[in-house]
Amino acid sequence: MIYLDHAAATPVSKKALKAMEPYFSDDFFNPSAAYLPAKKVAADYENAKNVIAHAIGAKGTDIVITAGATEANNLAFSFLDKGSVLYLETEHDSVRKVAESYGGQPIGVDKNGRILIDDLKAKMTDDVMLVSVALCNNEIGTIQPLSEIAAYLREVKMDRLARGVKRPVYLHSDASQAMNLLNVNIARLGVDLLTINSAKVYGPKGVGALYVSRDVKLSPVTLGGGQEKGLRSGTENVPGVIGFSVAVNEAYEHLNGNRKKYAELKRILLSELEGYELVNKKHTLDNFVVICYNGIDAERLIFLLEDKGVYVSTGAACAASKGVKSHVLKAIGLSDSEIAGSLRLTLGETNTKEQIHEAARLINEAANIERRRNG
Amino acid sequence: MIYLDHAAATPVSKKALKAMEPYFSDDFFNPSAAYLPAKKVAADYENAKNVIAHAIGAKGTDIVITAGATEANNLAFSFLDKGSVLYLETEHDSVRKVAESYGGQPIGVDKNGRILIDDLKAKMTDDVMLVSVALCNNEIGTIQPLSEIAAYLREVKMDRLARGVKRPVYLHSDASQAMNLLNVNIARLGVDLLTINSAKVYGPKGVGALYVSRDVKLSPVTLGGGQEKGLRSGTENVPGVIGFSVAVNEAYEHLNGNRKKYAELKRILLSELEGYELVNKKHTLDNFVVICYNGIDAERLIFLLEDKGVYVSTGAACAASKGVKSHVLKAIGLSDSEIAGSLRLTLGETNTKEQIHEAARLINEAANIERRRNG
Repeated sequence: MIYLDHAAATPVSKKALKAMEPYFSDDFFNPSAAYLPAKKVAADYENAKNVIAHAIGAKGTDIVITAGATEANNLAFSFLDKGSVLYLETEHDSVRKVAESYGGQPIGVDKNGRILIDDLKAKMTDDVMLVSVALCNNEIGTIQPLSEIAAYLREVKMDRLARGVKRPVYLHSDASQAMNLLNVNIARLGVDLLTINSAKVYGPKGVGALYVSRDVKLSPVTLGGGQEKGLRSGTENVPGVIGFSVAVNEAYEHLNGNRKKYAELKRILLSELEGYELVNKKHTLDNFVVICYNGIDAERLIFLLEDKGVYVSTGAACAASKGVKSHVLKAIGLSDSEIAGSLRLTLGETNTKEQIHEAARLINEAANIERRRNG
Repeated sequence: MIYLDHAAATPVSKKALKAMEPYFSDDFFNPSAAYLPAKKVAADYENAKNVIAHAIGAKGTDIVITAGATEANNLAFSFLDKGSVLYLETEHDSVRKVAESYGGQPIGVDKNGRILIDDLKAKMTDDVMLVSVALCNNEIGTIQPLSEIAAYLREVKMDRLARGVKRPVYLHSDASQAMNLLNVNIARLGVDLLTINSAKVYGPKGVGALYVSRDVKLSPVTLGGGQEKGLRSGTENVPGVIGFSVAVNEAYEHLNGNRKKYAELKRILLSELEGYELVNKKHTLDNFVVICYNGIDAERLIFLLEDKGVYVSTGAACAASKGVKSHVLKAIGLSDSEIAGSLRLTLGETNTKEQIHEAARLINEAANIERRRNG
């Protein structure tokens, strides 16, 4: 198997799984119970939250554990009024659909998928309370200049202050795809709300977190027993959070190694693949390679490659399953036929150089079969 | 260790954990991805949903997987207008707080904790769209006459129909505590919405489900990729759902054995414990024993017993951690000092007869220490 879809899902690392195991069986106690072994589990849970939070430069008490990035993104918007949000048009559906439900306005991107700061400025009104821009796009890996956006929002705040406008404006970023390759730090990015995701960093599925700055007053998404400071009730998913914390630690340990590894694998791919256009040329994560075979149906490539044990995708998995055309590729100006011919290859821990040579060979072969079929 | 707090948390069964393991590592794929191994994972996930649903007499497509019972309870209320819900006053906070947020009216209970049907009838108006009554109470194990409530709601519907009132009325039940001891069947109970919970049936934490009859049009609690028929977006927690399905199957296999086992253990406890009042005398789950030592502080008993390796609670774990007096014990008419002297012992798979003899001895000993201390 050559798995090149790490942006869709990552296996749980051996270390993370091993760390989780005791919490399924021996240490299964409800962290809210009053006796000592339960209090020990509660302490382990809080400690794991601290580890996750420290990785992004925050404290454990500043993050809310959720069932994943989607829930974290939904929670991030919970304090808004209608019509008070701007979001990047290339956002994942878990931001886009929520933003739309609040009557949000999309901000455009350039041909590299980077935010058009002038468009953000043009759409900024005194109603806007939140700007949501993913640190890295989930389809093409574009890294956004968040600190530049944050600097502009500081200007907006100063201007509002000077004019006696009391409405705050915050910056939210979905960093789900970023933590394996970038040093994600809330202060350096200048974000007030940040979404992170266990399932994309070799932790278990069903766990995510939202960093919330102390200024932002969110509304609960679920009511009940009052866990997670009342913002997200429900018995804590202890093994999930333990696994997430170990995975986050590993991601940071591997950060420099990952960058070198993926840059090298990407170089091999780009030099050995034939007859393609590179879609994500600039400002992109090293493990994202999006290529376009104009005139070829990429869906057919997926099936040909599947037979050879090579697993790739055309874009977001959740969109893929619904046969919807990528709004991201459209936003960066690709034609319908270019979109139909685009493949997303996302590298990860499971990949070796040998695999990448082999993958390039098999992708070339598949593309040639399709070219011949098309005449 | 003698663990007598199975209503707060249950360990994951060996079978369930074993079934989950491959989905963390080898079968980690995103179920929405287009290639075959991911489609196999998607099929396994749907199959697990079918298993869970079949256990309650439903189809897999009739249930929505959530991150637990709390989220399922929140989702169950998502279609409501303000002031359109009646709920039992002894409900868990994950129903009570949500119902209150919709301006719900509480229905009273008798001294056994059973619903006062006359109070339900008195509070029924044409505005009411939902009645929410847990199948079994989480603090005292009271089993509610759901089919009787359902029969009354059918009368309400007929009456509305006859008068041209178009507003529907539905029955929701949180059955989180029930599945190890009762054969929970949606048709027999007559419910339109039913919450079930993995973490209370020896499955993993962080997974639950809501059965939704086809008549009820819920609103999504999380927006995004459109998973779970759009009601609950987010990458599926595949290992969690696999574990839940195995645990549900085991619960049903053990159902008759469990009843006999717990009835016997309860008999031993009640005959060997000394100087207590039984709180939950009638209509209660066989694994719930709630006893009251008037004049003794049950919190002190918990700490004395903890030293001997016996783990018990005073009520709901999430309430316990906040030092709040039980609204359930209050509702059934206990005085403040009776509430302060109440212990909840909930039996489970981990218990043996020998443990129960020993627990009775140690609880008697602890109660005697406290009695002497009080003079």
